[in-house]
Amino acid sequence: MHMPQHPLDTFFAPNSIAIIGASRDEKKIPGLLLTFLRRNGFSGAIFPVNPSYENIGDLLCYPSIGAIGKPVDLAIVIIPARAVLGALQDCAAAGVKNAIIISSGFAEEGGESADMQAEIAELAKRTGMRISGPNAEGFYNEPRRIAATFSPTVDVKPDSPRLLATPRRVGIIAQSGGIGFAIYNRAKAMGVAVSNVISTGNESDLAAGEFLDYMAQDANTDVILMFIEGIRDPQMFVAAAQRAAESGKPVIVTKVGRSGAGERAAASHTASMAGWTAAYDAVFAKYGFIVSHDLDEAVAIAAAFASAPLPRGERVAIVTVSGGAGAWMADTLAAEGLQVPELSDGLQAQVRALIPSYGSPRNPVDITAQAVHSGGLQKIVELLDRSSDVDVIVVVVSLSSEARIPVKRDEIKPLIDRQIKPILFFTYTLPSQFARTELAASGIAVFSGIAAFGRAVSRLVSRSRFMPVKSLAFEMLRLTLPAGAVPEKLSEYESKMLLREGGISVPEGRLVRDQLQLAGALSGIPFPVAMKIQSRDIPHKSEAGGVKVNVRDPGEAAAAFDGLVANARRFKPEAAIDGVLVEPMAAPGVEMIIGTVNDSTFGPIVMAGLGGVATELFKDVVYRPAPVDVAEAATMIGELKSAALLNGFRGAPKADTAALAALIARLSQLAVALEDRVSEIEINPVRVHEEGAGITIVDALVVGRTAQPH
Amino acid sequence: MHMPQHPLDTFFAPNSIAIIGASRDEKKIPGLLLTFLRRNGFSGAIFPVNPSYENIGDLLCYPSIGAIGKPVDLAIVIIPARAVLGALQDCAAAGVKNAIIISSGFAEEGGESADMQAEIAELAKRTGMRISGPNAEGFYNEPRRIAATFSPTVDVKPDSPRLLATPRRVGIIAQSGGIGFAIYNRAKAMGVAVSNVISTGNESDLAAGEFLDYMAQDANTDVILMFIEGIRDPQMFVAAAQRAAESGKPVIVTKVGRSGAGERAAASHTASMAGWTAAYDAVFAKYGFIVSHDLDEAVAIAAAFASAPLPRGERVAIVTVSGGAGAWMADTLAAEGLQVPELSDGLQAQVRALIPSYGSPRNPVDITAQAVHSGGLQKIVELLDRSSDVDVIVVVVSLSSEARIPVKRDEIKPLIDRQIKPILFFTYTLPSQFARTELAASGIAVFSGIAAFGRAVSRLVSRSRFMPVKSLAFEMLRLTLPAGAVPEKLSEYESKMLLREGGISVPEGRLVRDQLQLAGALSGIPFPVAMKIQSRDIPHKSEAGGVKVNVRDPGEAAAAFDGLVANARRFKPEAAIDGVLVEPMAAPGVEMIIGTVNDSTFGPIVMAGLGGVATELFKDVVYRPAPVDVAEAATMIGELKSAALLNGFRGAPKADTAALAALIARLSQLAVALEDRVSEIEINPVRVHEEGAGITIVDALVVGRTAQPH
Repeated sequence: MHMPQHPLDTFFAPNSIAIIGASRDEKKIPGLLLTFLRRNGFSGAIFPVNPSYENIGDLLCYPSIGAIGKPVDLAIVIIPARAVLGALQDCAAAGVKNAIIISSGFAEEGGESADMQAEIAELAKRTGMRISGPNAEGFYNEPRRIAATFSPTVDVKPDSPRLLATPRRVGIIAQSGGIGFAIYNRAKAMGVAVSNVISTGNESDLAAGEFLDYMAQDANTDVILMFIEGIRDPQMFVAAAQRAAESGKPVIVTKVGRSGAGERAAASHTASMAGWTAAYDAVFAKYGFIVSHDLDEAVAIAAAFASAPLPRGERVAIVTVSGGAGAWMADTLAAEGLQVPELSDGLQAQVRALIPSYGSPRNPVDITAQAVHSGGLQKIVELLDRSSDVDVIVVVVSLSSEARIPVKRDEIKPLIDRQIKPILFFTYTLPSQFARTELAASGIAVFSGIAAFGRAVSRLVSRSRFMPVKSLAFEMLRLTLPAGAVPEKLSEYESKMLLREGGISVPEGRLVRDQLQLAGALSGIPFPVAMKIQSRDIPHKSEAGGVKVNVRDPGEAAAAFDGLVANARRFKPEAAIDGVLVEPMAAPGVEMIIGTVNDSTFGPIVMAGLGGVATELFKDVVYRPAPVDVAEAATMIGELKSAALLNGFRGAPKADTAALAALIARLSQLAVALEDRVSEIEINPVRVHEEGAGITIVDALVVGRTAQPH
Repeated sequence: MHMPQHPLDTFFAPNSIAIIGASRDEKKIPGLLLTFLRRNGFSGAIFPVNPSYENIGDLLCYPSIGAIGKPVDLAIVIIPARAVLGALQDCAAAGVKNAIIISSGFAEEGGESADMQAEIAELAKRTGMRISGPNAEGFYNEPRRIAATFSPTVDVKPDSPRLLATPRRVGIIAQSGGIGFAIYNRAKAMGVAVSNVISTGNESDLAAGEFLDYMAQDANTDVILMFIEGIRDPQMFVAAAQRAAESGKPVIVTKVGRSGAGERAAASHTASMAGWTAAYDAVFAKYGFIVSHDLDEAVAIAAAFASAPLPRGERVAIVTVSGGAGAWMADTLAAEGLQVPELSDGLQAQVRALIPSYGSPRNPVDITAQAVHSGGLQKIVELLDRSSDVDVIVVVVSLSSEARIPVKRDEIKPLIDRQIKPILFFTYTLPSQFARTELAASGIAVFSGIAAFGRAVSRLVSRSRFMPVKSLAFEMLRLTLPAGAVPEKLSEYESKMLLREGGISVPEGRLVRDQLQLAGALSGIPFPVAMKIQSRDIPHKSEAGGVKVNVRDPGEAAAAFDGLVANARRFKPEAAIDGVLVEPMAAPGVEMIIGTVNDSTFGPIVMAGLGGVATELFKDVVYRPAPVDVAEAATMIGELKSAALLNGFRGAPKADTAALAALIARLSQLAVALEDRVSEIEINPVRVHEEGAGITIVDALVVGRTAQPH
């Protein structure tokens, strides 16, 4: 098969590596790096560069990169920060293809040091030499055993062979070397096979998005694990995310900088731009990224994807030797939204023949320790594998013994090799190395954290339902809006006019400036009406006594007009009042909030949530990068907990979610079209009427682009 | 010091143990048990009982318990189920003080086997011999090294000394032997010291509550970890929970049977009565139990309590060698509601002197790997320990090395020994055994799961705020209610009358049966009024068109009366209609739900939640065992997410939470007073007005005791 080339092929699979700043001191970083590179068995050429030495061990040492005189695919730079730029210039002059800067002291320090980094970025752009770092920890290519890093986690000992339990490999991309190699360290302990682990450092040139692009097309990588502080190449990142989604490779992601302190930390140590988290969550949701906030959980999810097929449904069978552990597992899976259905009578009868009378065939299937001795575990797993009762099989056992496992390798391996349903092993005691090794030989990774395991099974199931959103091919809006800047805060009336020009239907209202205009307006609007003061200076109308609803006749309306204006004058004497907006009262419906906001990394983001207190108190909101089409908008609505309210809650009629989805899609497209001029749009509330009866935008607010984006 | 005696002292610390059914076969359970007992070094007398042998190894074997002729503190019974009762009768006759039945095949099988268990329970009651099990896995007393169990987790190897990192000990009580010893297994790996681990099995006599009582008073136990399927001795359990709360011993608990499948599993395998979970949560909340749903998390929480003092506040300093790991930790702690404040300028200046320029002194304090080499970690921890900026110190490091740790034992140990603030160590790589052992020598337990660690810190902080509720000394209600059974479903009017007789104020309403009575009633009730059909057969009045609100004058009222009655007749022709309830319209306020329900295990439980969709969609409800006093009711309200709505949300006036708390307390006391006659009371909604303006019970429903309790 002809494999397509990727620009980073020579980065991750170099034939020759130069170490600039190589050292004989094995305790220091340059020495460690050389040691790890050789001890892992790098098969290409190694060129130490250091004018102080003629040789390091049996390797010839060169005074400069130019003195090597042979092609160099990768230079690893470990010298004081001030000398780095010059060394890189030498590399570029010598035709070096890629470089990794391990040295620290650049953008993370600010000032002149940040300027040095900018020059490095400029050099990469000018010469085409690709540069990772500075402040990076390098990478480890496990299939080729290339240790281009000083991380002690890649050190190998002759007495501990690599445990390999998963047939597929996980690629790890981390904007923190410590975390990237910690994930590797934990994955290795669990027997998860790894393709590459890369620590991206300050990303002067090569950034996380480009590495994601590499992993998405890399034939050795089946699952991707990312640790993100802030994305610096968002366009590349989004394109790579789309590529990963289309290739079917799951991406498990941790994004830090969610809290003030986390953001402070992420910003300071790798000079990253820790982002407003909702935009990241929006992008992750769109491309089906699996978000995890725990190290072991992320590894467990990766292990599940790297070892099990996707299930066809959410029905899980639990086979356990401990009733208590089985009950705990059942609760854990149920809390994740999975089904643990009672087995059919026929299947129960077959199971009952294989277990003692004090076991249970129902599900959890409690086979008791007794049935393990008699070989019942294997037979019951086979029964469940053939049955149409369940989609996933979870085996709950104790694997602490250094001498025994509850299945036989020659019996379980064929079953795992041809598994159609996921068959996953959880141990409630800590697994022994013996059990890990024995089961790994059959392609079984052992899980031991119960919450993390439940999450992993749940993510397998939800992944089986994930459909990548097609590449965007929207017919973009053709706007007839007048050109020019949009003021910082529009009034409700102006906001609604802008929405209307964007093709979004708003109530037939009239802005009236005096009693005469009011009387005219009322001839065209049926009672009861709502009347609202309009002023760019009064964004919160209710606070100002600026809203009167259920106005029933002309007399009430006239009085309301005077009252609203008087209230506004009293509330803010200097406010410029545009008039009073008169609208028909909206029909009843479920109140929702829809909005857009421009994110500095990812551009416009669209949001939907339940109106009222739910958004604020219960954070029941969902985000997507704009634009979305109607189908994606419908998916957004479905992800809300409060979606139940729209779908006929407590016998109420179903709401017009189709109209709501159309509004979300249209608004998201409008936000993109107006990206340069509008920073935020908020429709709050929009009332969603009964199915077929559409929606009513009750209130709206547009914020012009003068304000800084998030 | 004179230690008080506990009835279970001779159970957990026997001077002599008989093994009934002892065996020479070391692979079977009786043989394993004897082996473990001896290998752990039990210092008392061991009497194997088995008529087939004269000796087992160097131990004399007895044909029967009666043949021993010496006092036996504990008999461990491992013989076929049918022979157990006879053996126990022999034990009782021989004056044996305690017995553990390991054998299975009793209540968990049902039928005759369950009857055998009932006879065992009867024997215990009659003779005073205390019996644990059947279907138990025994116990391990770690300080005395008494292994009265066949669990392989207590097997000791000469080459692996017990890792002891915590100065305090954890007691483990589990209704599943598998889980109890799995917790022990994981605690041991982390270096958590354990007092006793007991598996309670079917609990024919000794049940979890009594073991909790033992641990609560046991001088060797400082922290308690429980795994519960269903409590069989609720009065003992509740009293023991109170004892634990008053003694200041934290109890960490996992309750399974929360899902249908979990309940099925818990019910089948140890014949437990898996309970309605809300009642358990109510009891746990009252006594400050810390609920955990994850094995490693439960152990991590226990480890934190067993090694660190309670903090004085929620401000955490993070000292890290990896910026990424520091940011992740900051996010994790912030998500748990803790503060990671930026350090004061003065402290930052002191820190800056100890770290490289590319580190960060802000918090997280990123000291970089460099500062570890120069001894900065120790100095910075000392600075933070002395500072008033923070209450907890979290050290984030990599402890994977088998040769080095980032602190020196002689420097860190004195700091840990006299720690006033918790100083906790987290490693983002997996800890090496070397690091665990080295740090254990300084009293440091190493945490490695980030989510579990965050939860543990959070629980330390919230525990520091826990005040045990005093033993209940309520002035109980004196009811003037007529005696006799309460019908299954009372109408709203009848329900409100019952509440009024119970001392709870309800609106001044009138039940009217015709237009004449209506006219009379309206002379005493100010307009606008609400009118509601009253019938025991129509519990959901709105569905039946049985409610008319905002009725403004006598004409509207007369029409409404006819309409309501006609609607009800149409909705349910056979319904017995009591009339129409006329009440003044309630003033505006926040709508809440208050209720009580009788739980089969714990009796009446009182519930409070936000009205409307929040309760159902967002499960924002809180429970306590009834009765509660006003202070505890106020605590309940404070635990609701929606409490924000009552405390002046978005500039609204504060609501009368004092009146709401008084209602909750009064209702809970009424539920207790009526426990024999009423199974449920629901006040839905109660409207909470502005501070000082009290509450209005808008609707209420009382369910009589004919219905089965939950």
